[in-house]
Amino acid sequence: MHIDHPVAAPAVRPSNVDAAFLARLSDRFGEDCQTGQAIRDQHGKSEAHFTPMPPDAVVFARSTQDVADLVNLCRAAQVPIVPYGAGTSIEGHTLAVRGGVSINLSNMTRIVSVNAEDFDCTVEAGVRREELNLYLRDQGLFFPIDPGANATIGGMAATRASGTNAVRYGTMREAVLSLTVVTPDGKIVRTAQRARKSAAGYDLTRLFIGSEGTLGIITEVTLRLHAIPEMISSAVCGFDTLRGAVDAVVQSIQIGVPLARVEILDDMQMRAVNRWSKLDYPEVTTLFFEFHGSPAGVAEQVETVRELAAANGGGDFQWSNLPEERARLWKARHEAYYAAINLRAGAVGWTTDVCVPISRLPDCIEETKRDIAEAGLMAAILGHVGDGNFHVIFPIDPNRPEEFVAVAAINDRLVARALAMDGTCTGEHGIGLGKQSSLVAELGEDAVAMMRMIKQALDPDGLFNPGKIFAA
Amino acid sequence: MHIDHPVAAPAVRPSNVDAAFLARLSDRFGEDCQTGQAIRDQHGKSEAHFTPMPPDAVVFARSTQDVADLVNLCRAAQVPIVPYGAGTSIEGHTLAVRGGVSINLSNMTRIVSVNAEDFDCTVEAGVRREELNLYLRDQGLFFPIDPGANATIGGMAATRASGTNAVRYGTMREAVLSLTVVTPDGKIVRTAQRARKSAAGYDLTRLFIGSEGTLGIITEVTLRLHAIPEMISSAVCGFDTLRGAVDAVVQSIQIGVPLARVEILDDMQMRAVNRWSKLDYPEVTTLFFEFHGSPAGVAEQVETVRELAAANGGGDFQWSNLPEERARLWKARHEAYYAAINLRAGAVGWTTDVCVPISRLPDCIEETKRDIAEAGLMAAILGHVGDGNFHVIFPIDPNRPEEFVAVAAINDRLVARALAMDGTCTGEHGIGLGKQSSLVAELGEDAVAMMRMIKQALDPDGLFNPGKIFAA
Repeated sequence: MHIDHPVAAPAVRPSNVDAAFLARLSDRFGEDCQTGQAIRDQHGKSEAHFTPMPPDAVVFARSTQDVADLVNLCRAAQVPIVPYGAGTSIEGHTLAVRGGVSINLSNMTRIVSVNAEDFDCTVEAGVRREELNLYLRDQGLFFPIDPGANATIGGMAATRASGTNAVRYGTMREAVLSLTVVTPDGKIVRTAQRARKSAAGYDLTRLFIGSEGTLGIITEVTLRLHAIPEMISSAVCGFDTLRGAVDAVVQSIQIGVPLARVEILDDMQMRAVNRWSKLDYPEVTTLFFEFHGSPAGVAEQVETVRELAAANGGGDFQWSNLPEERARLWKARHEAYYAAINLRAGAVGWTTDVCVPISRLPDCIEETKRDIAEAGLMAAILGHVGDGNFHVIFPIDPNRPEEFVAVAAINDRLVARALAMDGTCTGEHGIGLGKQSSLVAELGEDAVAMMRMIKQALDPDGLFNPGKIFAA
Repeated sequence: MHIDHPVAAPAVRPSNVDAAFLARLSDRFGEDCQTGQAIRDQHGKSEAHFTPMPPDAVVFARSTQDVADLVNLCRAAQVPIVPYGAGTSIEGHTLAVRGGVSINLSNMTRIVSVNAEDFDCTVEAGVRREELNLYLRDQGLFFPIDPGANATIGGMAATRASGTNAVRYGTMREAVLSLTVVTPDGKIVRTAQRARKSAAGYDLTRLFIGSEGTLGIITEVTLRLHAIPEMISSAVCGFDTLRGAVDAVVQSIQIGVPLARVEILDDMQMRAVNRWSKLDYPEVTTLFFEFHGSPAGVAEQVETVRELAAANGGGDFQWSNLPEERARLWKARHEAYYAAINLRAGAVGWTTDVCVPISRLPDCIEETKRDIAEAGLMAAILGHVGDGNFHVIFPIDPNRPEEFVAVAAINDRLVARALAMDGTCTGEHGIGLGKQSSLVAELGEDAVAMMRMIKQALDPDGLFNPGKIFAA
């Protein structure tokens, strides 16, 4: 069962798709245009809790020119277009709320170029991050942005994804050097050259990053890469208190430890991880660390963090240089979402995220845990503690609609709490359908009006992913 | 003597400033509104080679509300507004090409808040970077962005400044968490909360960074800060060849050395530095380094770089942990611009910058040096080699207009060369008046048309710093 978030139920309007339009699509795209119910349904749902809204047709693009041609066909007929990558977004970004055409870019998987000496590469939007890293490994390079899911690079750019490595390597905002974008008027624009920085005009690259398909369709991405560190170590440490865990991280950053990853998992999330991944960690607030550097540098980082953990109520500090240990740890972390949902048999998941200044993180998590307990619900919390960003994952009984209503209320209070702490309503999931009123609460009517002016200027017909970020 | 860059001579149009308008300014701002010739002239010129264009009046703002009130007065009378900070920009950003009011924000110097545990602070736009770092020092924090000049933080945000530390700490694009902006319709907008990352809607923060006063006036800036490193060392090393120097840097980055600063100075720039700062370095292509980290980490970095320098034709590798040695070195670097101009008695300066993928940097610099020599001119080159960004500083005889023409032609060829290498026409100086046609050459008519659509949407009357980025 799915229900909409109460604040974000968009009006369904006619999509202008008729037989003549479908015939034109079919002429141009042949078997890459599909209208079967199963494939439309697959493109109209998401991993999250939203009611599915299928498109009228799905087109599989194989090139930037395919995308431009589709845009021109849709513009002529005033048909909405919804870009689709791996379908792993969790705020309903891919739902066709006004019908129209879902454009699937997952066949655009060419690695256009790798410039090892310049630490950059250019890939088509459908390349997934795990495949990219496999491809890069032999050249001693890696792409650090890791949102958990094996998302497409295009989708990650469109939603300003980040994840476990952001504390050291930044988010998609920092990782992208340039984009190729098809604009609502059917033009193909490259937003920047390949230089590592530029002061040339408005930052179109950053404007498209996080625009959720509402301003253009990203078809190629030029990314900054990094040298694979000489040494990588990982560590796990449970803490007496949440505050102690966060303080250990803040003090590590203050002293200059360049933490590559530092994840916080609450007691409930550790229980889920233990069950799902057959592990036996203590079920207390726990930090997962990763350290990158030279052998001596990593040894120094580990020693510093071990001391700070002990000084802040940390227990046994288990660290390892073994790749298989590290892989086991991060596999457990990456499966945390599914682990949390499986805390309850037959449950469906509702996940949300906020991000606050790190000094407010203990208060924000503690108050949220109290709120969840008082509502008689169960949820797992995990987060990117170095950024102040955390997720709450609710496993919901699909046969109890009142649970959805209760979770929606907790989510609203969570957002209000984060905003009151000078935080944001979403650190990395995006606005999509679920957080449109939160966006206004966060930045005010005037700032959102400015976003709408930009949308209106670049997409005057409102055909690009309508109903996302702002109500259609 | 000043001349305009031939491609960027803007049309001067009436500014709608009349006695009644000046009386309204005077009523509202009293002595903070000035119309004397000397102060208008001061605000109408720049450090660079452009013909001065004074505003009709100068208003000294003391608060965001002052700025909003001025914007509303100007909007009602359709009078242009040009924001002014420290006046250190070098592409003519502060010139009042259509007259109007120059708004000087240099009295807005409040440090609004420092959140040491969150590694951030909020300052008014007129705070200068050196004063900010003095203020932060006791708390063990620093703000790394260093464009050389002691610019205002607001001006640095407006021009997307970067400088010597960008290789490690990024540019203003990465350093700014949030802005307070007065928009062309007189609204006061905060672009983001204080969280370190956010996926909430379009990235208004990054849209204003680098918009050169054409979309809004920045009045407050929230900045990311960093812990002052436990150990800082510096080093100097001359090289047999330019290519050897760049290769030493590329290999250092590949091996994972987190260089904090790495500057390249050519033979001519070294001659200028030696003369100006009374030093006696060999007058060959030279790298200036800075290393940040723990004592052991810095020692390891120095040793690695020393070996790579030697392997690439580096000479004597002089390094030091002494703060006074470091200060002497970076003072010489920061005075490089004046040192270069003073290579010729009575000269005026024309400076330009481009940024290319680092693998193309040796070719780009070598071809540029040949071009300068063939034109019978003299220029110094220095750059942020880790970013692929370099500056050319021409000391020009003000009594020989043909030199301006020759330099303009060299600049055009330099930009064309950088673009052909997938670089940008400006790494950190901005477009201003001098690089408007270069912007079109770099990104194409369609991308620049998109920028104009945004400008038109947010500033339909075209009153905010008219004639900059695009011709008025």
